[in-house]
Amino acid sequence: MAKTVLILNGPNLNMLGSREPEIYGHETLADIEKLCTDFGDELGLKVDFRQSNNEGELVEWIQNAGGGADAAILNAGAYTHTSIALLDAIQASGLPVIEVHLSNIFQREPFRQESYISKAAVGVICGFGAYGYRLALDAAAGILGDK
Amino acid sequence: MAKTVLILNGPNLNMLGSREPEIYGHETLADIEKLCTDFGDELGLKVDFRQSNNEGELVEWIQNAGGGADAAILNAGAYTHTSIALLDAIQASGLPVIEVHLSNIFQREPFRQESYISKAAVGVICGFGAYGYRLALDAAAGILGDK
Amino acid sequence: MAKTVLILNGPNLNMLGSREPEIYGHETLADIEKLCTDFGDELGLKVDFRQSNNEGELVEWIQNAGGGADAAILNAGAYTHTSIALLDAIQASGLPVIEVHLSNIFQREPFRQESYISKAAVGVICGFGAYGYRLALDAAAGILGDK
Amino acid sequence: MAKTVLILNGPNLNMLGSREPEIYGHETLADIEKLCTDFGDELGLKVDFRQSNNEGELVEWIQNAGGGADAAILNAGAYTHTSIALLDAIQASGLPVIEVHLSNIFQREPFRQESYISKAAVGVICGFGAYGYRLALDAAAGILGDK
Amino acid sequence: MAKTVLILNGPNLNMLGSREPEIYGHETLADIEKLCTDFGDELGLKVDFRQSNNEGELVEWIQNAGGGADAAILNAGAYTHTSIALLDAIQASGLPVIEVHLSNIFQREPFRQESYISKAAVGVICGFGAYGYRLALDAAAGILGDK
Amino acid sequence: MAKTVLILNGPNLNMLGSREPEIYGHETLADIEKLCTDFGDELGLKVDFRQSNNEGELVEWIQNAGGGADAAILNAGAYTHTSIALLDAIQASGLPVIEVHLSNIFQREPFRQESYISKAAVGVICGFGAYGYRLALDAAAGILGDK
Amino acid sequence: MAKTVLILNGPNLNMLGSREPEIYGHETLADIEKLCTDFGDELGLKVDFRQSNNEGELVEWIQNAGGGADAAILNAGAYTHTSIALLDAIQASGLPVIEVHLSNIFQREPFRQESYISKAAVGVICGFGAYGYRLALDAAAGILGDK
Amino acid sequence: MAKTVLILNGPNLNMLGSREPEIYGHETLADIEKLCTDFGDELGLKVDFRQSNNEGELVEWIQNAGGGADAAILNAGAYTHTSIALLDAIQASGLPVIEVHLSNIFQREPFRQESYISKAAVGVICGFGAYGYRLALDAAAGILGDK
Amino acid sequence: MAKTVLILNGPNLNMLGSREPEIYGHETLADIEKLCTDFGDELGLKVDFRQSNNEGELVEWIQNAGGGADAAILNAGAYTHTSIALLDAIQASGLPVIEVHLSNIFQREPFRQESYISKAAVGVICGFGAYGYRLALDAAAGILGDK
Amino acid sequence: MAKTVLILNGPNLNMLGSREPEIYGHETLADIEKLCTDFGDELGLKVDFRQSNNEGELVEWIQNAGGGADAAILNAGAYTHTSIALLDAIQASGLPVIEVHLSNIFQREPFRQESYISKAAVGVICGFGAYGYRLALDAAAGILGDK
Amino acid sequence: MAKTVLILNGPNLNMLGSREPEIYGHETLADIEKLCTDFGDELGLKVDFRQSNNEGELVEWIQNAGGGADAAILNAGAYTHTSIALLDAIQASGLPVIEVHLSNIFQREPFRQESYISKAAVGVICGFGAYGYRLALDAAAGILGDK
Amino acid sequence: MAKTVLILNGPNLNMLGSREPEIYGHETLADIEKLCTDFGDELGLKVDFRQSNNEGELVEWIQNAGGGADAAILNAGAYTHTSIALLDAIQASGLPVIEVHLSNIFQREPFRQESYISKAAVGVICGFGAYGYRLALDAAAGILGDK
Repeated sequence: MAKTVLILNGPNLNMLGSREPEIYGHETLADIEKLCTDFGDELGLKVDFRQSNNEGELVEWIQNAGGGADAAILNAGAYTHTSIALLDAIQASGLPVIEVHLSNIFQREPFRQESYISKAAVGVICGFGAYGYRLALDAAAGILGDK
Repeated sequence: MAKTVLILNGPNLNMLGSREPEIYGHETLADIEKLCTDFGDELGLKVDFRQSNNEGELVEWIQNAGGGADAAILNAGAYTHTSIALLDAIQASGLPVIEVHLSNIFQREPFRQESYISKAAVGVICGFGAYGYRLALDAAAGILGDK
Repeated sequence: MAKTVLILNGPNLNMLGSREPEIYGHETLADIEKLCTDFGDELGLKVDFRQSNNEGELVEWIQNAGGGADAAILNAGAYTHTSIALLDAIQASGLPVIEVHLSNIFQREPFRQESYISKAAVGVICGFGAYGYRLALDAAAGILGDK
Repeated sequence: MAKTVLILNGPNLNMLGSREPEIYGHETLADIEKLCTDFGDELGLKVDFRQSNNEGELVEWIQNAGGGADAAILNAGAYTHTSIALLDAIQASGLPVIEVHLSNIFQREPFRQESYISKAAVGVICGFGAYGYRLALDAAAGILGDK
Repeated sequence: MAKTVLILNGPNLNMLGSREPEIYGHETLADIEKLCTDFGDELGLKVDFRQSNNEGELVEWIQNAGGGADAAILNAGAYTHTSIALLDAIQASGLPVIEVHLSNIFQREPFRQESYISKAAVGVICGFGAYGYRLALDAAAGILGDK
Repeated sequence: MAKTVLILNGPNLNMLGSREPEIYGHETLADIEKLCTDFGDELGLKVDFRQSNNEGELVEWIQNAGGGADAAILNAGAYTHTSIALLDAIQASGLPVIEVHLSNIFQREPFRQESYISKAAVGVICGFGAYGYRLALDAAAGILGDK
Repeated sequence: MAKTVLILNGPNLNMLGSREPEIYGHETLADIEKLCTDFGDELGLKVDFRQSNNEGELVEWIQNAGGGADAAILNAGAYTHTSIALLDAIQASGLPVIEVHLSNIFQREPFRQESYISKAAVGVICGFGAYGYRLALDAAAGILGDK
Repeated sequence: MAKTVLILNGPNLNMLGSREPEIYGHETLADIEKLCTDFGDELGLKVDFRQSNNEGELVEWIQNAGGGADAAILNAGAYTHTSIALLDAIQASGLPVIEVHLSNIFQREPFRQESYISKAAVGVICGFGAYGYRLALDAAAGILGDK
Repeated sequence: MAKTVLILNGPNLNMLGSREPEIYGHETLADIEKLCTDFGDELGLKVDFRQSNNEGELVEWIQNAGGGADAAILNAGAYTHTSIALLDAIQASGLPVIEVHLSNIFQREPFRQESYISKAAVGVICGFGAYGYRLALDAAAGILGDK
Repeated sequence: MAKTVLILNGPNLNMLGSREPEIYGHETLADIEKLCTDFGDELGLKVDFRQSNNEGELVEWIQNAGGGADAAILNAGAYTHTSIALLDAIQASGLPVIEVHLSNIFQREPFRQESYISKAAVGVICGFGAYGYRLALDAAAGILGDK
Repeated sequence: MAKTVLILNGPNLNMLGSREPEIYGHETLADIEKLCTDFGDELGLKVDFRQSNNEGELVEWIQNAGGGADAAILNAGAYTHTSIALLDAIQASGLPVIEVHLSNIFQREPFRQESYISKAAVGVICGFGAYGYRLALDAAAGILGDK
Repeated sequence: MAKTVLILNGPNLNMLGSREPEIYGHETLADIEKLCTDFGDELGLKVDFRQSNNEGELVEWIQNAGGGADAAILNAGAYTHTSIALLDAIQASGLPVIEVHLSNIFQREPFRQESYISKAAVGVICGFGAYGYRLALDAAAGILGDK
């Protein structure tokens, strides 16, 4: 049976396309969802793609993922830098989580260069725009041993 | 047609009046709403006044404001100092935002002297109690060219 | 009439039992709720026990507690270290609040050693696992003058 | 009898208009003086508008204001960030002082984000260009109870 | 046979009652000793209660406790913040130690918010005045499995 | 004609396989070279794979790459954290560079969490072991528009 | 012939008496001058007592003192904490300088606890109010060998 | 009846005369005791002069002084920079304490420029060698109103 | 027509020759003025050489230089490290400014190693004593295209 | 006549053998004393071996050593990191002191990586367990010119 | 006989002309070498001009220069900020070294504003592009007494 | 068969004897090599003594040592403080490494007080000049169980 990868997007990622395109690119979140679903099909992975602006909701999606998903890809947006609750949820879930960012956060403001997610994620992929989600799915496939 | 100014209030501002009045004054949030609506009428501005204790809800109000409002006044309360998500929402919305605080935050604890909102706001008004909302509406009128 | 103690649990405490038991112990949150209700009965205190992963909801529970409870015990989990909104809610509520942690946070990562709750709480109890809730209830009884 | 508001401008503000207009705008200090005098007339306030590049002179103007003025508006320019002597003068004068900056200093170099004036000022208004002086006069009127 | 709990008090705790009562309360150290002995009787624990102003003496009491006591409660007073020797003694003794403070040290000067004792103690109880010793004895009973 | 990707490995990467395998895995550098060459063939990319323990040599390889390669993948090992010369070489070469690390450097010592390479790299991939090189080659293909 | 001691007072010391008397006391600068002149007579020292709000003027008084005075007592007020120019003037003058403060600066804001003057002064006397000037004159007599 | 001033000297002050005379001068502690006794006689003050290398003993001398002395002069030597216990003893004793140092500690190593004693002392006198004890006695006389 | 170079010297530079000659050399400011005038003649540059101990006066000389000089050489002495007002004046004047120091400030106290002037100056020359003024004049000639 | 080397051991070193043997080894302090006495015999050095948990006592042993010993070896245990009094005693004694630690303190907690002793010791030997005392004795012999 | 000045250029300076010309200018290193040789001829100085990307080679050139050159000019490029080995080589060589940078490093990233070279260099010249080498040669002539 | 100890010396140690002898002593590196070879003979240890100014070469010597030597003594000179590559090489080699410094680095500049080598070395010996190499060889013999 196909394994499931939960792809979670944090605050303001629903604004992609119009939001500061010189930093985040011109693709919308729907474009990225399609990119992920298509590449998931190619890899034989079921993709469950979601977005929330609410820290608590993201926490609960990760908590529940421990039961129903095999791995998660997390672009926590601004919560990357401020949410210890998300870090704890990852550690509580026992799920392998891959951290993704559209921009290269290490070339931005100092407060964007610290990540609580990194302390629990398997690995980090950043700076490749929407293409980074494709790389993350490939990494998930690698971790899940399907490749 | 009258321009609209969204006035957003963050966590615990619903407690005004009873909450530490030596810092925040004796006026309730309803008093401030009335003050704003009245002065908005005077300036020919429509006022949309809201409060939320939820970071995600505030983020979404700002995201949506990009469509329906002409400017925003934001007293983000405690989220001023901790919410990069609000900062990102302001930058994503493209809306002119005026930051307001009832107290002079620079005479308070160090953690209240740092503001993520300031990094994206047009300007800051603080220390004038409820009167600061009046000044902010005047500033909005100035920015919107109606004065 | 019996006094009421509100016991609030923050994010990921609903995961207790399975979540990193070497740090947080093997008892579930339901076990702790029973422990508290039983010991509250013994002390003649009514216990109102809740959990939320949502910062805004916790803020509002504390705001409302100002009206209906006599004291609160707060294990704010990850929000301990990041939520100025909770600190403000405690100060706005005027309620005596006792801070509890299952683990000894001073033996963990540096970011877990800073607490915004401590700035407004009557006192702190940490490192005693589920037993710490019992101690906190006893402390509440002491503060409420029932002992 | 009309109350008097002393408006003091610090170093390099005599260069306005030609000085880095992308930061400070195209209005000269004379333009701002006229704006203030006119709006003061409207509010029934006498305006005493001055500029100095000399820290000691600014200190003495504030010391003396304690005797002859009812409130002061202070744009201390670069001395905002370096002059404890000005802070002391404000505290010694007992005068209500409103801090103004043309630019939003919180979006500039770190050394421009610290203000000694803020430690004694009633409140701060920054980022609104010359319009900020108008807001400050309005705030002064509010403080002096004339509005 | 009754288990023994060593209760150690550090410098200046012999001054309790007269020493800054707004911080430390009006009870003398003799009052607290009685409170502890009485509650120890209730719990079936033998209490050995001491005070010293001398760091070396406290170190040796803890070293020796490893042989004759079952647990210790330590209010190290000012040495809490400066004595690595006490930390080492606790680690060398192998004894379960409970850290107590009368005041909530997290609302005091920054240098009182750092504790070397916390790095080796089972847990911390602070802010409950003399009542905190009672809680600590209860915690000791819990740890010793007598409750 | 096939595009060329230069893959550079810094100090001690020649020790892979035997070097702290719990951190760096059991694959040797020759294994990784083969993995890269094979996957490069699949992608239609020529791979030029090298290792040096010498900072100056790595600098010159990057300088020269500006002439003969289309992109570079750089695992600078320890020089990641100390070599401004490598950063300058990347900026001087004008080459798109992808930063790779075998381990998740954000879960290691603080000095391994700072990277000069990140300041000039297109993006970062870390924590996926040898598989990260495969992801980097895929990213290079994406950047070079061959995919 | 009687030796001369120059006593220099910095910014806002002309406000003494009315200025925050709970910190600086109720004596005016004229009172202190009289106290110094009288005690100087007693010690056989000529006192030259001055005040300026201007950093440059204070610098020049110290420069010139190198020629005409035997020692100096300096209460540099706010310039204590910000004026490297005064430090340099002391070092250039070769004059023995005694630093005085009315208040105990080590119990005040952090920025008042740093002194550039201390780096060149013979010694420091602070916290004794106007009486500190008397002590400083006595110290000067000691240094000048007249006692 | 003559008032009593306790003069306490901390660790290594018994070594004066031979100890680094270029910093501490050539006078022995016995010389300083005589200087103090003589000048005390002149002022009508009884001097109780002691030295200890033991932090706990100094703490107890201050605790007891609260009963038998009218003021204290404290040169805590190295404990100045490390002993919170001495600070607490001063605050517990309620005694006016004058801090003295032979050398100008602000021209020495950074760790000698921080003083816990200063947080509770009436004032500080440093840099005048043995003469500083004379000034401190004079200051004590001033505080005790005998002059 | 000959171009003009304004050479400004800050506080205490009027003391050269006698002032700490082991740091600043034995030449007086008059010697340096002559050196500059002579070398200016050689280069075909008019030299306007001044000194002030007053920050405000230096600010105004730079403001005015924007009108009458072609370049400036600035040895701001102690104000180098403390004067944001001078930095602003340079930026407001639009004048090319060359920063000069007699000593190598990077081998001195930490507070002398920070320069506000450097943030706006074309370049920096330090450590060459009076000869540095000659180098600065040569640099000015280079910038003004006269060489 | 044989020269004497004083070997001083600080707090908790009397616990060696049972105290955290994975850090400090299984040898008791008596074992180390024997090792030192034997090797001293071999080198022709008289060994005076002591231990104290009391800072003041260690200070006095060093003070007195200045009279009776030729060199000292000091393992100050926890006081290494907190005792400026010991540093001062070493400087006052004029004795060559060799600092020893059983463990490699640079691989332990940050607060164990700072040493006041190092600022006055001839040299440091750490990380070699009990064998380090042997090396220190050899070093003492070297310094005393007996080898 | 003509004196020799060694001019050493560090990593990536061989890339000048094409490397970020908006920072480093359009002149190649060969252009600068010619400029130096020509101006050296004018001054009667022999110029030995070299470049290396290798820290060790630069170290050795400086070590050897102690024997064969009279002064050195060093633009250490990125090694300026990271190489203590170069600092040590300068100190070991006893050679007068002049530090040069093309750009004004004080207007660049913080890590480029720290220089190990400055701690041993006679002086620093930066911000004047290739012209700075000319100034440095002139400074060398001054130091060597040939001018 | 005799065991081999590799003794590696880093940059500028080839300059010993002439290089700052007040810090490093008058012995040349050849003197130290002879001292080591002789004492190695005495201990039955083969000594392989080398020096390099090149970080990469030192890295490779350590890498290779893992195969052919039994222990290493490393005086990494300036690379002690900057080379993570050396730290990694030690960890990769699995070799017991003893860190040596001629001077007591804890009495020198702050940047010389941090060592990357210490994080992997068995122990540290510093401050004993050339004699420290002898102590290190003795320590190696102890570790290798030959003594």
